[in-house]
Amino acid sequence: MTTPALPPPAPGANPAERELLTALLDHRLLVWTGVPGVYGKGAVFEDVLERFDQLVTRAAAGDGAERLRFPPVMSRRHFEQSEFLKSFPHLAGAVTSFEGAPADHAAMLDAVAAGQEWSRHQKLTGVVLGSAACYPLYPYAASGGPLPEGGRLFDVMAWCFRHEPSGDPARLQSFRMREQVRVAAPDAALVTWRDGWAERGRELLAGLGLPVVVDVASDPFFGRGGRMLAANQREQRLKFELLVPICSTEAPTAIMSFNYHQDHFGQRFGIRGAAGETAHTACVGFGLERITLALLRHLGMDPASWPAATRAQLWPET
Amino acid sequence: MTTPALPPPAPGANPAERELLTALLDHRLLVWTGVPGVYGKGAVFEDVLERFDQLVTRAAAGDGAERLRFPPVMSRRHFEQSEFLKSFPHLAGAVTSFEGAPADHAAMLDAVAAGQEWSRHQKLTGVVLGSAACYPLYPYAASGGPLPEGGRLFDVMAWCFRHEPSGDPARLQSFRMREQVRVAAPDAALVTWRDGWAERGRELLAGLGLPVVVDVASDPFFGRGGRMLAANQREQRLKFELLVPICSTEAPTAIMSFNYHQDHFGQRFGIRGAAGETAHTACVGFGLERITLALLRHLGMDPASWPAATRAQLWPET
Repeated sequence: MTTPALPPPAPGANPAERELLTALLDHRLLVWTGVPGVYGKGAVFEDVLERFDQLVTRAAAGDGAERLRFPPVMSRRHFEQSEFLKSFPHLAGAVTSFEGAPADHAAMLDAVAAGQEWSRHQKLTGVVLGSAACYPLYPYAASGGPLPEGGRLFDVMAWCFRHEPSGDPARLQSFRMREQVRVAAPDAALVTWRDGWAERGRELLAGLGLPVVVDVASDPFFGRGGRMLAANQREQRLKFELLVPICSTEAPTAIMSFNYHQDHFGQRFGIRGAAGETAHTACVGFGLERITLALLRHLGMDPASWPAATRAQLWPET
Repeated sequence: MTTPALPPPAPGANPAERELLTALLDHRLLVWTGVPGVYGKGAVFEDVLERFDQLVTRAAAGDGAERLRFPPVMSRRHFEQSEFLKSFPHLAGAVTSFEGAPADHAAMLDAVAAGQEWSRHQKLTGVVLGSAACYPLYPYAASGGPLPEGGRLFDVMAWCFRHEPSGDPARLQSFRMREQVRVAAPDAALVTWRDGWAERGRELLAGLGLPVVVDVASDPFFGRGGRMLAANQREQRLKFELLVPICSTEAPTAIMSFNYHQDHFGQRFGIRGAAGETAHTACVGFGLERITLALLRHLGMDPASWPAATRAQLWPET
């Protein structure tokens, strides 16, 4: 079985990206699907990812979070409400479907056969692809009425989509994000909680053998106005990331992020504290595919040969 | 925390559907997301689903399948090639994204704010939502060159999407499908393999305490021509399903399917046998959410109280 031919790398692309991607495909850790950033996963890749996910579960077991798992699609209405389309329209994925009669069907198939854009034969459905695991959580948190004293803590996971095709195997269009999310009345404890996780995350990942650093960060807001939003986000130190070199030392990859949203989601979804005030939220996200790729890149393509200290954490029963 | 209000059931809907959905939400097995057929899952639901998935792994361990896991999106080009849009246009979900300039962005946001259809501000991306776990597999199987003697066996899983909003909690828009897929030169052994799995599947599910039956079936082909295709599929006995009552005894729910595709995928994707002939394919699919729902419906909402024989299989270590 040969590795399928990849398209030529983009002009000026970092050669380390193609080198890593080829190694991952050759080892059957990833499987090429014809679309950059959308890969099948072999058994070994999945095992590492699931083992890391279980390590997070053990690390956070004492926190008492409510565990929820969401599907890869979410309510379009909630997504519109979240204002993701305002800040990141270029990354969002909407889901359309055919709702026409047989004659429209024939016209759509003609367009498909002719290689034409056939989206005009489609309509928006009630769902979009989720862009972060925590988005479906906020309307759920709001639906429960005022928060209890001290707020609520959630543990969520979902497949996420971001429309940014890339030859960098660490920049996926479709990937799993696990998050711890704190929803509470406005309180300095939210920032303390987030910063505590930055330290817990750093220890967890460094303990596996990854050369990680924490740095202040910003989101990829759209357009000229977006640059101001990003600068403001940095200035207020709302977002931090845990970074590790995967394909580049100069531009390391974020494998975790630590975010304080202030009252954004509380406002958008009407989440209320015990006294009726708008709740604040913070979240901590693990990029599960990126963490798996970082481990493979730094410790080697065969997890059986990883250091005993790393293996003892990921496969504690062996 | 209260259960969020559900929309009124569709006129003429089976009341057992709302009753089961309400029980699942009340027990925090499912979480309402605002969209029928798209539910968050609580920890207990996920545990049962994962345990059943592991039981399948143990049951099939001796078969030597190549294990692959695919993301919820797949190549649009491969999906077009599969002819799914020809047979099931109403079920497919395409993924669109915004690729415009800031002025277009403002127009899209206006449409969103006005509650208008905003898909005209979007373009098809390179991906669609997968409708069955095995679709991304066929181009991969073809890319390896002619099949070895005896063909190949795969074990795949993916989140699938089908646009059929319904108040029936067993009819999801977004769900996980696990499949065993055999790709081989045309040979009666493919039908024998499929039928063998119908018996293995029946034993596996009956052994957990579900009142299952196997019956011949057909796919929900679109339009008037579709009725002929479905009749032909039944006449040729290409598809069987494992059925169990969930919300209705008269119309039980398919929780597994057993399919012989003849040369459909071999032709569409150019999969060749050792002698260059077009390969045939067959697949066996487990509907993981439906199996979990069937277990909860028949054995009770609290897995801790399930019969010891069932628990011994799903939680063998306890």
